[in-house]
Amino acid sequence: MEREIVIGIIGAGRIGMTHAKSITYEIPGVRIKSVADPYITLEAAAQLTAMGVAVITDDYTELISDPEIEAVFICSSTPTHSPLSQEASRAGKHVFCEKPVDLDIAKIRQTLQVVQESGVKYQVGFNRRFDHNFAAVKRLLDEGTVGKVHMVRITSRDPSPPSAAYAASSGGLFTDMVVHDFDMARFMTGSEVTEVYAAASVNIDPEIGRAGDYDTAAITLKFENGAIAVIDVSRQAVYGYDQRLEVFGEKGAVSMGNDTLSTAVISSAAGVLSEKPKHFFLERYMQAFTEEKLQFFDAIRHDSIPPVGGYDGLISVVIAAAALTSVKENRPVRISEINNRYDLDEGVRG
Amino acid sequence: MEREIVIGIIGAGRIGMTHAKSITYEIPGVRIKSVADPYITLEAAAQLTAMGVAVITDDYTELISDPEIEAVFICSSTPTHSPLSQEASRAGKHVFCEKPVDLDIAKIRQTLQVVQESGVKYQVGFNRRFDHNFAAVKRLLDEGTVGKVHMVRITSRDPSPPSAAYAASSGGLFTDMVVHDFDMARFMTGSEVTEVYAAASVNIDPEIGRAGDYDTAAITLKFENGAIAVIDVSRQAVYGYDQRLEVFGEKGAVSMGNDTLSTAVISSAAGVLSEKPKHFFLERYMQAFTEEKLQFFDAIRHDSIPPVGGYDGLISVVIAAAALTSVKENRPVRISEINNRYDLDEGVRG
Amino acid sequence: MEREIVIGIIGAGRIGMTHAKSITYEIPGVRIKSVADPYITLEAAAQLTAMGVAVITDDYTELISDPEIEAVFICSSTPTHSPLSQEASRAGKHVFCEKPVDLDIAKIRQTLQVVQESGVKYQVGFNRRFDHNFAAVKRLLDEGTVGKVHMVRITSRDPSPPSAAYAASSGGLFTDMVVHDFDMARFMTGSEVTEVYAAASVNIDPEIGRAGDYDTAAITLKFENGAIAVIDVSRQAVYGYDQRLEVFGEKGAVSMGNDTLSTAVISSAAGVLSEKPKHFFLERYMQAFTEEKLQFFDAIRHDSIPPVGGYDGLISVVIAAAALTSVKENRPVRISEINNRYDLDEGVRG
Amino acid sequence: MEREIVIGIIGAGRIGMTHAKSITYEIPGVRIKSVADPYITLEAAAQLTAMGVAVITDDYTELISDPEIEAVFICSSTPTHSPLSQEASRAGKHVFCEKPVDLDIAKIRQTLQVVQESGVKYQVGFNRRFDHNFAAVKRLLDEGTVGKVHMVRITSRDPSPPSAAYAASSGGLFTDMVVHDFDMARFMTGSEVTEVYAAASVNIDPEIGRAGDYDTAAITLKFENGAIAVIDVSRQAVYGYDQRLEVFGEKGAVSMGNDTLSTAVISSAAGVLSEKPKHFFLERYMQAFTEEKLQFFDAIRHDSIPPVGGYDGLISVVIAAAALTSVKENRPVRISEINNRYDLDEGVRG
Repeated sequence: MEREIVIGIIGAGRIGMTHAKSITYEIPGVRIKSVADPYITLEAAAQLTAMGVAVITDDYTELISDPEIEAVFICSSTPTHSPLSQEASRAGKHVFCEKPVDLDIAKIRQTLQVVQESGVKYQVGFNRRFDHNFAAVKRLLDEGTVGKVHMVRITSRDPSPPSAAYAASSGGLFTDMVVHDFDMARFMTGSEVTEVYAAASVNIDPEIGRAGDYDTAAITLKFENGAIAVIDVSRQAVYGYDQRLEVFGEKGAVSMGNDTLSTAVISSAAGVLSEKPKHFFLERYMQAFTEEKLQFFDAIRHDSIPPVGGYDGLISVVIAAAALTSVKENRPVRISEINNRYDLDEGVRG
Repeated sequence: MEREIVIGIIGAGRIGMTHAKSITYEIPGVRIKSVADPYITLEAAAQLTAMGVAVITDDYTELISDPEIEAVFICSSTPTHSPLSQEASRAGKHVFCEKPVDLDIAKIRQTLQVVQESGVKYQVGFNRRFDHNFAAVKRLLDEGTVGKVHMVRITSRDPSPPSAAYAASSGGLFTDMVVHDFDMARFMTGSEVTEVYAAASVNIDPEIGRAGDYDTAAITLKFENGAIAVIDVSRQAVYGYDQRLEVFGEKGAVSMGNDTLSTAVISSAAGVLSEKPKHFFLERYMQAFTEEKLQFFDAIRHDSIPPVGGYDGLISVVIAAAALTSVKENRPVRISEINNRYDLDEGVRG
Repeated sequence: MEREIVIGIIGAGRIGMTHAKSITYEIPGVRIKSVADPYITLEAAAQLTAMGVAVITDDYTELISDPEIEAVFICSSTPTHSPLSQEASRAGKHVFCEKPVDLDIAKIRQTLQVVQESGVKYQVGFNRRFDHNFAAVKRLLDEGTVGKVHMVRITSRDPSPPSAAYAASSGGLFTDMVVHDFDMARFMTGSEVTEVYAAASVNIDPEIGRAGDYDTAAITLKFENGAIAVIDVSRQAVYGYDQRLEVFGEKGAVSMGNDTLSTAVISSAAGVLSEKPKHFFLERYMQAFTEEKLQFFDAIRHDSIPPVGGYDGLISVVIAAAALTSVKENRPVRISEINNRYDLDEGVRG
Repeated sequence: MEREIVIGIIGAGRIGMTHAKSITYEIPGVRIKSVADPYITLEAAAQLTAMGVAVITDDYTELISDPEIEAVFICSSTPTHSPLSQEASRAGKHVFCEKPVDLDIAKIRQTLQVVQESGVKYQVGFNRRFDHNFAAVKRLLDEGTVGKVHMVRITSRDPSPPSAAYAASSGGLFTDMVVHDFDMARFMTGSEVTEVYAAASVNIDPEIGRAGDYDTAAITLKFENGAIAVIDVSRQAVYGYDQRLEVFGEKGAVSMGNDTLSTAVISSAAGVLSEKPKHFFLERYMQAFTEEKLQFFDAIRHDSIPPVGGYDGLISVVIAAAALTSVKENRPVRISEINNRYDLDEGVRG
């Protein structure tokens, strides 16, 4: 058995509780000692107690100052990610930070600087890289199945839009939602984006439009290695969470589709009916949420580089900013307009 | 939170350890206090200790006599299922017994008699009923999707055969393997088998033939409600564990296929290649193993009838005996030749 | 270009007109000179005239005595197949005869005797062997993809039952419908059936039952080479013509499914809906009807053996008789009880 | 029966012969009287003779001046399409013209002016609209299955690139190949393109790059009705002709995939292997080539508007020009920069 790792979680909302449950029930050798959340619900507190969490507090500094705690999960609201990352790093805690690190690129850079100086492990929650489908495609690419990559196609559709208020505060479609797809395109090509063109519109909720955001978009990315990626995005697919990808190149294509709740098929006079995709990210990516943490804990135990680093968190937000600029100015935008390649050492690049 | 149930497990082999892990990591509110196995491996013992199992013993009577233990899982070798079921029942423990209850029909009856008199909950490990695919089909049938059922088709193929020695000791192809499919056919039709015809052959391992057993079979079942089921079985599908079912009737068909490790598809000059079925039952039915126990613990907590009862365990072995007789005598065999409908009350019928 | 073949067609019903159209529009180098049918409709006559058919008569002897006509298609009612086959053969015409050759096994033998003595080409209309899906599977088997065959599974379902009157006159479920599947099982295994067990029931139309026939059946065939086939049959799949096959063996499985009118898929809140199978045999097997004739004309031009011979026509009816006996007597029936291997030379065996 | 239409074909290359065969063997009521091609092969001439073509000439004016000929198919090289369209129209012949009408937009306008003044039927060979898969999607859209369209995704990949010489003379990737996809996007949205952005690269054949052309592209189209389309294109998919489309909107999605030669599937230790897409456009669109002509002949017989008119031919070339400008200047290009909406009456718009 591996040595036990003691952790704390900041934020007991949906994603914080998801991490807590999967650590408790699926990851041996890790103990959640403390959870900090000033707005924790009674239900969440009861569940955490049942999981054996010893300390439930509204003060996150209790976690950060606890010498027994080795790593901290930052699952609080987006504006707190940067300051908490810095505080935890300075206290010598390894950090698993939910995405995005910040909506402000300068703040991300500053945070990563602190992380780098602290020498701790830092992982950003791009969970999709750990999904069995995306990971299977990546493995095939690494084995050379497609050869040189010419084109990446990503379809990314949520089952239903957030409230317009959330949409506005979250950084908008590109920074909140498509940031995952930007990371995926980089992951699959193994290359960096040089230029972004995005077309976007409001089809689903006029309130989203009034808040200055979009709910539908098509984005074209050009990569250093010559690959092109097209990403189409919607805040609402009435049939469920639609997450598909295809990588096409000199030797053919590797693609992947959605998972469903079952393989059941009904053949009737009305046609042949099969299951919709799993409803949303909690259903689809539950395994991935576990896998990303297993690899984070591995990196801590074996002092190796976490699989998704700070640089990945930074650059995806940069691409999102370029995409938004592209829509606003109706022109292709070079990444170098937003950000010169950020120099971070391996430990932060991940 | 539900009240805690304390259990013991007899047998720490593959299936016993599977139950232990899924209870520990996926089922809140249940504590494994003791595990008994005289032949436990060092690795298994270490894993159980890490799971927090307090007592590891080679004497199963420790479990049965422990007043704190409420339920016992019988995961030892087949010949011990009947006597242990009786002992545990008499001690007032609820019993989850792996299939088959016994190879001898008279002994199963005797055991069920004891269970019934003891008034404990008794569940048999027909895990497939709890698989998301089979369960989805069953739900659709219950909703009337197919209407009156005319035909059930089951394909059941293992990835590789057991040793001839195991084949001989396990009761043979029908009692060891096809017993699951007999249970499934009953589950899907909601009716009882009246007659069995089976054709069988030896294609894979001549040693299996020399041991008097078969590795390939096609079985036809007739049901009280007029439905017909055809089951085709093989001990070796080189492409993996092949578990498919179709229920056909007046309003059409509901079918289900295999699960795969991913939805990845390779399109190349050689064709379009997708994943094989998941390798074997541990991969395919892991969720089902958890689900069957959740329902068992529910039945204990709410004093309700377990979803798969002793009668289900009995009758599947009876059908297996009829199938073997059919092959040996090359004729259809009526169930009534083997067993008159056994009278058990609801609690045992499940 | 190949030399022109001049033919006559006896019977201008549905199947006769299907042949006429496919010869006219899809098969170069063959001219339909005459069509004989005493009950021809005005519409059919007009269509044939438009196709350039020179002679439309109610007297089939005009065709048989026409020295310009080289081959005759027998598309009239089943009871006429045998006598017309004999007359045409004796007149030196090559014969393409729709299935079944006769409902009476002795008459088939007598007809094949005449055919053999006449030395003409004789092909029976088992069109499915020429379907692109079945043919693709057969090619893969011939290439050794499956290795030794252990099991063949055939599902054969019509979209709607014939009238009870037709069912009675056609020889019943086995001789009229399943005869195609018996031929297919022989084609796929490349082996001869030794024993048949059939379970049958009436689910769809009680009139069919009153006429002494069945509309649902499950048949098990044992083959000389050790393979087992299971065939499940229904006169009514409300979702269309369901024609599937799987061949399983030592190296895996080859299977095939239905064709659909399009690959269109609807993803909506209700699920993922795709097309039903093509409606019935005319839609599904149109290409196969052309291909079987191309090979028949090839056999005539190059004096080679037709791909489906008289023996194939005979033996399928024999298996059908065995299946019916099996249902009536509820026991497996050996083919040798019905028919000793019939000795016909290559030209008739096809 | 419909009245006979007598036609002539100019050009007996691959596409001309394809039309000749499908008219001869699949379209009743149309007679090919004459074929003109100064470079006709002996093989083609022999085939046409066998089809009953009376006149084979190297002088196309023989067709155009023949009073018996009602309609002319223009299947010669692209630079001749415009002048031949004009000559044939002026002679009062209905015209079926292969795409593109011309590489020069001004010449297309001039040609359509002549066609309009002549009052003849004019159809452009955008065959894909008639493909069973694309047509099935279009029918579903017309029935409101998707509701308001938000996004159209088209994948269009050829199995192998043309020679660089052909690529240069054909007008390049956008005008030669993607023109079909531009037409399809218009057909599906039922709306006109307002702006185009294209990213393109050379991945497959450096000679194509040296000739100033591209072999890979991703194009984004914005439509008047607010829909966005993304088209990804490659001159070489090693697995065959890849033609897929998805239309996504408020009520879900309708998609379609490729056709294959069979539904055969091999399950082996290596995985589950199914057929590649049909090899190229002749295999995939053979039915569509027939269907487009049936509708052309219908328009002639019933004096109705052909389903794909001159305007469709014009505007697709305009979009292609905009796409090329977009790549060259690396910016979105508005259609109005290339072409103000061209005013043609219904008969030419089709």
